[in-house]
Amino acid sequence: MTPSRPLLLTRRIHLDTGRENVVVISRRSRALRPEIFRGFSRVEIRSDPKVLLATLLITDDDALVGPDQLGLAEPAFRRFGEPEGRRVSVTPAPPPDSLDAVRAKIQGRSLTAAEIGAIVTDLAHYRYSDMEIAAFLISSASFMTSEELLALVGAMANAGTRLSWSESMVVDKHCVGGIPGNRTSMVVVPIVAAHGLTIPKTSSRAITSPAGTADTMEVLARVDVSVDEMREVVATCRGCLVWGGHVNLSPADDILISVERPLSLDTQEQMVASIMSKKLAAGSTHLLIDIPVGPTAKVTSAAEAMRLRKLFEFVGDHFGIAVEVITTDGRQPIGNGIGPVLEARDVMAVLANEPGAPADLREKSLRLAAHLLEYDPQLRGGTGYTRARELLDSGAALKQMQKIVDAQGPSMCRTDLGTLTFDVTATSDGTVTAIDCLQINRLARTAGAPIDKGAGIRLFKKVGDRVAAGEPLYRVFTFGESEHDLALAAARAHAGYTIDGHTGAAGGAAP
Amino acid sequence: MTPSRPLLLTRRIHLDTGRENVVVISRRSRALRPEIFRGFSRVEIRSDPKVLLATLLITDDDALVGPDQLGLAEPAFRRFGEPEGRRVSVTPAPPPDSLDAVRAKIQGRSLTAAEIGAIVTDLAHYRYSDMEIAAFLISSASFMTSEELLALVGAMANAGTRLSWSESMVVDKHCVGGIPGNRTSMVVVPIVAAHGLTIPKTSSRAITSPAGTADTMEVLARVDVSVDEMREVVATCRGCLVWGGHVNLSPADDILISVERPLSLDTQEQMVASIMSKKLAAGSTHLLIDIPVGPTAKVTSAAEAMRLRKLFEFVGDHFGIAVEVITTDGRQPIGNGIGPVLEARDVMAVLANEPGAPADLREKSLRLAAHLLEYDPQLRGGTGYTRARELLDSGAALKQMQKIVDAQGPSMCRTDLGTLTFDVTATSDGTVTAIDCLQINRLARTAGAPIDKGAGIRLFKKVGDRVAAGEPLYRVFTFGESEHDLALAAARAHAGYTIDGHTGAAGGAAP
Repeated sequence: MTPSRPLLLTRRIHLDTGRENVVVISRRSRALRPEIFRGFSRVEIRSDPKVLLATLLITDDDALVGPDQLGLAEPAFRRFGEPEGRRVSVTPAPPPDSLDAVRAKIQGRSLTAAEIGAIVTDLAHYRYSDMEIAAFLISSASFMTSEELLALVGAMANAGTRLSWSESMVVDKHCVGGIPGNRTSMVVVPIVAAHGLTIPKTSSRAITSPAGTADTMEVLARVDVSVDEMREVVATCRGCLVWGGHVNLSPADDILISVERPLSLDTQEQMVASIMSKKLAAGSTHLLIDIPVGPTAKVTSAAEAMRLRKLFEFVGDHFGIAVEVITTDGRQPIGNGIGPVLEARDVMAVLANEPGAPADLREKSLRLAAHLLEYDPQLRGGTGYTRARELLDSGAALKQMQKIVDAQGPSMCRTDLGTLTFDVTATSDGTVTAIDCLQINRLARTAGAPIDKGAGIRLFKKVGDRVAAGEPLYRVFTFGESEHDLALAAARAHAGYTIDGHTGAAGGAAP
Repeated sequence: MTPSRPLLLTRRIHLDTGRENVVVISRRSRALRPEIFRGFSRVEIRSDPKVLLATLLITDDDALVGPDQLGLAEPAFRRFGEPEGRRVSVTPAPPPDSLDAVRAKIQGRSLTAAEIGAIVTDLAHYRYSDMEIAAFLISSASFMTSEELLALVGAMANAGTRLSWSESMVVDKHCVGGIPGNRTSMVVVPIVAAHGLTIPKTSSRAITSPAGTADTMEVLARVDVSVDEMREVVATCRGCLVWGGHVNLSPADDILISVERPLSLDTQEQMVASIMSKKLAAGSTHLLIDIPVGPTAKVTSAAEAMRLRKLFEFVGDHFGIAVEVITTDGRQPIGNGIGPVLEARDVMAVLANEPGAPADLREKSLRLAAHLLEYDPQLRGGTGYTRARELLDSGAALKQMQKIVDAQGPSMCRTDLGTLTFDVTATSDGTVTAIDCLQINRLARTAGAPIDKGAGIRLFKKVGDRVAAGEPLYRVFTFGESEHDLALAAARAHAGYTIDGHTGAAGGAAP
């Protein structure tokens, strides 16, 4: 189609529409009258050679967008990458061709690698609306063949940056997630790097959890480093702890996740595709996968963990990544802090061998590091754990972490703890028999984490601990009255602790 | 959860966000800081007893929404139903409970009637985001059991107005759609009503087509009548032709369709659920379903039509509606006009027995009316067609239509034809062997129909007609230069006519 003749002038609209490209047109627009577009799901904005697909909203407010203007909401404005006042044409956009494959998948047909490649390319170029992304995810959620899974991993890895390293062995670890406070990477990376293996760790930020490793590391150092900077850090320190989003690893995965999470879709195939596409793009050769199993973890049974393990191994074998999968105890949070600042304090306490450092975080980290160290051909078989403990106890790991922090540079974020706090106390004497990971995550998130680095939860009691009625189980840290009130109400409704088998036996109490 | 303490003042935002409830909050909001909401897909707006679920956007522009304000985009503002400046609280909203059932369906489980009922209730109350609606549709698209289909039809019918009539026989007709110009209802209703049967016809407006029956009827009379007015019209005239959306028949269906269409999802089960829920809600006792079959129709094979027929019969039997399904010729448009004004002229020409009236529209309408008249126990079997023709030829149907138009009252819309036109001509001599219904619909839509009532297409040649090179095949009517240019470019790319088997042999030419 030829563009509509009367060109519109772009204008930036300070409206954060999340991931989706959104543009706003006046109902009295000098270009096409917007109602005409109603039958089309998307519009194409063009100022040669730039093209952008976007969802169209209509306004009656000339102060927002005048008849000769086209408003670009923040993400669309940023991606269009042109200053305001650019002349653009707007035309109804046909849906991406690859949607035909999505519809075929909905009808039960398996897709070819080429079809999946086209879908991923369109996804990575923001050509899918949220609804269309949901359509792809859900059509794939009920079943995905092995071939489809491999094609998806390959296409997603190729859609962004592909890192390559001169070392023949590049080790990595990854946890499938869901356990509050589980910041083992920040202990494992310095241990493994201190030993001398290359471990360029990229991590994600939290999407629906109170902290991702990138959020917590950011308390100590800058994590939004470029690919070149990342290479320099790794050259100096053998390891790094940076945010994968900034180096654009598997961007299609980030887009899929942004729709998966609000829909609480989390199939095994999608989880494997997400993780393995990132590891493939990151150039890992040896990968340790941690699958915590527990009633409120992502994986709730050994059978499920087994199936997931096979999927990881299958994909790893295909792409030449040596994958080892271990299951770990996922029945409760790891460490005492939940939220970036509190977790960073746990990590530093473990690295510094402080007396009060959380033993479970230390032990789990040592176990994971031991597995990674065993990859080293120079190390005598079975001595990985001893070597890991040696590096930790001697302070070598702490020194390595300080080196990594220095190399990545200082973070600009606040590192103080929230000052508006309340304690949640036990309502009866007894033994803690369960902690609900989902609820603890939810509470920490409601308290303001990870946006407020210093918001979160400090656990005083873990599973197996004896408590007396009135004794504090945990403290919630917040910065604002509304976060405080919301978290308090949520904790009162469901504290997340079970004492002697009585769910909800513990109530929230303001100090 | 308790509401956040600092209440916000509502403000109307002149932003048309389609069907979805959208609210806008300042990044410096005095209530919860908006980033905190990021993990939640929706927020709850409350001003007791009013509650509204909405999607949250964030702004940096105080002129749009200040720190102590909450902006409500048009649909949210309308549905909240309160004046500006109302004090409201905003809290993160947990997703509707019924989404658990949607996730179970994605995983392959069949749903109970209670689960489907809960989903439909949440849908009808605008508690689902577009993504969540897509999730339900797609999870149901790959398979739906008979029991699920029945539960869906019943729940959708119950979610809105249920009409009941004192007559023991209430006849109705419905076409599954997709054929341009196919306005038989506007001929059938006056014939059947003139005979004396009760036929309270509710129709839809176009969503992605260039005209729905409600859009075309609106050229002649008001169609957004209330339930009471509809009853009065039917009491006086035995029939009516009104917009079903205004009387709130199966509102959940309208919501589902608003997501189905942009995704081009149209499974048989969803089509049957949509149509039968509306008919059940409308109180029909005898229903004739028209399934046009053709290569560019919605139904492309006899086998597909057969399966669809069985589904209609199954659902009809369950709910006590006598359903008869016929297949008709769907290989090309019906009548000569496409677009509300042009179609209304065709209809009136048929009713007035004008010499130039389109014969195919007349014949098809007579055939459908004949089927409906055969429901009348008083009529001798097999005489339905003769009776229908008698009522049409005598002018009784025209008189009845005028009575219905008078009873519904005058329409306020423009009824002139678009003045910016172009003709599409044959590029070679030959016989028209096919007309692409999809492309003709698309062109008429691009020309401005149904928003511009007088925009659309007048066909000069139909399948089987001889044409000479340079002879006009059809004329496109538009009101604006941009619509003209866009339609011209689209017609040049794909004229929609096949001459002697050569697809695209006909090109567009400006006059």
